[in-house]
Amino acid sequence: MTDLPKKVIFHEEGPREGFQIEKGSFSIEDRAALVDALAASGLEQVQVGSFVSPKAIPSMADIDKLFAAIKPIPGVRYTALWLNESGYRRAVAAPNIFIDGKILLYNTEAFSQRNNNCSVAEMRKRQADWVDLYLADGFQYESAYILTAFGCNYEGDVPLQTVVETSAYALDLARERGQPLPRIILADTVGWANPEEVKRRVGAVRDLAPDAPIGMHLHDTRGMGAANFYAALEMGVDMFDSSVAGLGGCPYANHANQHGAGNICTEDMVLMCQEMGIETGIDLPALLEAARLAERIIGRPLSGKSMHAGLPKHSRGAACHDVSMPNRLPG
Amino acid sequence: MTDLPKKVIFHEEGPREGFQIEKGSFSIEDRAALVDALAASGLEQVQVGSFVSPKAIPSMADIDKLFAAIKPIPGVRYTALWLNESGYRRAVAAPNIFIDGKILLYNTEAFSQRNNNCSVAEMRKRQADWVDLYLADGFQYESAYILTAFGCNYEGDVPLQTVVETSAYALDLARERGQPLPRIILADTVGWANPEEVKRRVGAVRDLAPDAPIGMHLHDTRGMGAANFYAALEMGVDMFDSSVAGLGGCPYANHANQHGAGNICTEDMVLMCQEMGIETGIDLPALLEAARLAERIIGRPLSGKSMHAGLPKHSRGAACHDVSMPNRLPG
Repeated sequence: MTDLPKKVIFHEEGPREGFQIEKGSFSIEDRAALVDALAASGLEQVQVGSFVSPKAIPSMADIDKLFAAIKPIPGVRYTALWLNESGYRRAVAAPNIFIDGKILLYNTEAFSQRNNNCSVAEMRKRQADWVDLYLADGFQYESAYILTAFGCNYEGDVPLQTVVETSAYALDLARERGQPLPRIILADTVGWANPEEVKRRVGAVRDLAPDAPIGMHLHDTRGMGAANFYAALEMGVDMFDSSVAGLGGCPYANHANQHGAGNICTEDMVLMCQEMGIETGIDLPALLEAARLAERIIGRPLSGKSMHAGLPKHSRGAACHDVSMPNRLPG
Repeated sequence: MTDLPKKVIFHEEGPREGFQIEKGSFSIEDRAALVDALAASGLEQVQVGSFVSPKAIPSMADIDKLFAAIKPIPGVRYTALWLNESGYRRAVAAPNIFIDGKILLYNTEAFSQRNNNCSVAEMRKRQADWVDLYLADGFQYESAYILTAFGCNYEGDVPLQTVVETSAYALDLARERGQPLPRIILADTVGWANPEEVKRRVGAVRDLAPDAPIGMHLHDTRGMGAANFYAALEMGVDMFDSSVAGLGGCPYANHANQHGAGNICTEDMVLMCQEMGIETGIDLPALLEAARLAERIIGRPLSGKSMHAGLPKHSRGAACHDVSMPNRLPG
């Protein structure tokens, strides 16, 4: 019926996106237990945290210790985020880490200034340096995040052509160095995407470079996350950032929290894939348990749905939460 | 790119689905204010409540009074639900009501017994009587709800062929009486649908009767509601039941509440439509205010997302909630 991929890879970001925006402080032991539970569920890529200034994000000050505390499963990529060279240097020195040489490119000046304190052009230049750094250190230039690829809270609409040009810059960085093309990851950083626009922009990047793999970083800021995910699947996109239990934001009337809603919820999207016959390599009941662990650690209800509703009876191997009279008619 | 409809009609069910499962008691004044706010936002159909046994659903005991309290806007259809003839008789006698002659058909014995205390065959017979009743009273036979059209918590998978046969029965009731075909409304009563299955089942019903309008009643039980909605749009479905603020369930760790998650969220789906250029006739900022009113009345955070995140800047006429640093990179 469509170009659905045969297999989808999830890059789990809950341990980073989730914990860096929470107000509380969480023990290394709990956070390592969550990372371990996520990896044990079959997730191939788990982002453990950020190597950033402890002043900016105090909750990530102990990121080295967290990396040391995980019980690595062979074959799982434990990844991290950095925003500058010194962060990258700290990351390289961390135990158990997998360096997925990625770069970050902006589409609007305001967001670039706000997030990285430099212009779009300056950030491009720095990212070219990052690519050289990765290659010099023996890592691959794997992916390029195209940030605010669907709109920017500061500048408004981001033209499709801008996204194409930014993607072209990322691809040229590889071509100029004789490297394989990186994965272009379109990030709906602030939740402006809709399914039709996902198709248009993914299509435009595919037209630009049919051989470049494409990924997406989606948020469920305005309740369209699952629809955007499905639209991307329809376009054959086979890699997604996501957060267990929908970690990464508390959309529920927590107006003091200015971070908006979290990423698309890993286990809900895994369920969608499995129900549609798309392979994920993930043990869904185990992932649901990891989601519930995340909820216990955070200490408040999280926005994931399957973790609360249970799996439908026909999900393979899953216990069914028998829901009596789930609705009065015709509900 | 697809068969997206030009216009979508929402049948707002929040005042019924929402309030009948809440434990608390809510004043007629508040509930009427919500119905009025919803109708004022441009919604053409608002389901006010159920004419059911006060023993089964105490919160609907005063449904007549609620109908009397609303300030009807000309052209808006204020609808209700009934489960038997005596409920229908009460509905017909209510002020301000619009009788949208609908019938309810089951696909599994267990759910039929559980929800209506009779067999599937007996329910079919009763529904044929309802059609005659509607026509005798001068109302139209408008729509047929095909319940648990994607799976049943008690019996598991519901074969596509069963849904087709049930739909055929509903259509024949009209043909036999020389009436226009009713709208076939596929209800994902317990949240088992996925987007591909939505396409398959909508497609099968369309093949069965290309001239019959199709609608959907969707829940967001497992985080796929928005994706199922989009998949239905792609198939040209142009009418949806939905609930303001996602009313109709509290999926957030409220395990005492056995009702699963609510309907798809009206305002989030309206936003999706508007962003994709599909007409809804709805004033979205006004609808967001109605969602916030629902939250104030219910007295706890509801699951709607746009009501908390605000509209993206480019939404027509909408105030923008400027969200600073919504995520750390690459979020």
